[in-house]
Amino acid sequence: MDLSVSIFDLIFLKFQNPMSQLQRIAIAPSQLQEGQILLTKEQQHYLGRVLRLREGDRFIAMDGKGKWWLSQLTGEQARVLEALLVETELPVSITLMVALPKGNGFDEVVRCSTELGVTCIAPVLSDRTLLHPSPQKLERWRRIAAEAAEQSERSFVPTILEPVTFNTAVTANQTSHRYVCEARGEYPHLNKVLNSISDEIVIATGPEGGWTTQEIENAIAFGFQPVSLGRRILRAVTAPVVALSLITAACEV
Amino acid sequence: MDLSVSIFDLIFLKFQNPMSQLQRIAIAPSQLQEGQILLTKEQQHYLGRVLRLREGDRFIAMDGKGKWWLSQLTGEQARVLEALLVETELPVSITLMVALPKGNGFDEVVRCSTELGVTCIAPVLSDRTLLHPSPQKLERWRRIAAEAAEQSERSFVPTILEPVTFNTAVTANQTSHRYVCEARGEYPHLNKVLNSISDEIVIATGPEGGWTTQEIENAIAFGFQPVSLGRRILRAVTAPVVALSLITAACEV
Repeated sequence: MDLSVSIFDLIFLKFQNPMSQLQRIAIAPSQLQEGQILLTKEQQHYLGRVLRLREGDRFIAMDGKGKWWLSQLTGEQARVLEALLVETELPVSITLMVALPKGNGFDEVVRCSTELGVTCIAPVLSDRTLLHPSPQKLERWRRIAAEAAEQSERSFVPTILEPVTFNTAVTANQTSHRYVCEARGEYPHLNKVLNSISDEIVIATGPEGGWTTQEIENAIAFGFQPVSLGRRILRAVTAPVVALSLITAACEV
Repeated sequence: MDLSVSIFDLIFLKFQNPMSQLQRIAIAPSQLQEGQILLTKEQQHYLGRVLRLREGDRFIAMDGKGKWWLSQLTGEQARVLEALLVETELPVSITLMVALPKGNGFDEVVRCSTELGVTCIAPVLSDRTLLHPSPQKLERWRRIAAEAAEQSERSFVPTILEPVTFNTAVTANQTSHRYVCEARGEYPHLNKVLNSISDEIVIATGPEGGWTTQEIENAIAFGFQPVSLGRRILRAVTAPVVALSLITAACEV
């Protein structure tokens, strides 16, 4: 528990901007040798040119299997400062696509999804979405995610992507476990398809009034499987919380 | 779908007070004979003296196995007017005890729990509860439950009880499946204990800051089993939604 707080100190407090996060990169276990991380050319480029880290800056190296190391850039390589315990993070990566609900409903979706352990939130515009959010909204959601991550004692602040249309979002992700929740129609319950999740899952929940037929057909064409969340009609702000509750429990139990 | 709306018409519109609900009683299948319900002395007393129904008044008779009948009081017996389809109701009865959260947080708990299919909501006061609600609050929650039941296409409006202390509430219910959610401590995940639920379940979720040790010990002494909802710390308003998502899915799938 103390350690998870200390990670947060690192993420939130040891930077000039208290909302910055430590950047994370994925490494292969073979790159770690005697406390040194042998960075590839691509990783050197990514850390130095893309993320603009400088000599002595810290970042998190992850092996994709639940092990995280606090690391420090030293020349073209990096050294491990300490292993991080990430007991509150899920063993799988969850991307939640949510049709933006009306009003400030998305604030609560961001808050609850973060508490439940989501990795990435992708707000999407549906044909039935009324809201076209301002750039200030995105900043607001990221701030809410950071606060909720801290309150729920997570080690990781979920990424929130720029809103795009649902029809575009479904083309972007090629993960094998992709699901679209649909209230009407005879689809299998999400709980029935969750047995085989091992690494990554994408789940999409619709707007007030549901996805349009064209949107569902398009998602299916791009490999999404339609699923049900039960027999009652859930609001657009409730459905993501229900879906994540089921996925989280399936991963942790 | 049309029928579930028509039940709602009955429940909400065919009474003087649009918020009244049709009263429900449980009957044994053997009491139903040729369209007549042979009421026991206790049922006659309950309908006439406790619920104050009069000749010609309607109520719902349920056999506890998912069959409901719209019924009418005729003398000391009742007759069946029509069988009701209750496709959107769960096959089990769920009582949710929730420590009242601060602010208007309970509004959202009532709304989400109703969407998820809860049968009875019991707001409870914990040693850490700051809020002591006014009688107007109870009316407000009942109105929210009625609206949410209609929006989620339920046939049934959950009952909302008067707030009592948690220490009192745990003594009131003798159902065999009783659980208290606790964020700290090494308890089994709720999902692990849900296999055996057949008829009735009581689940309690705590206030901001969690239950006190004394409250947990008292609940355990009265037959409640402590369970976890996962490794992250959930807010008081999120925990009931997560718990009900898991219970609902376990009942319906």
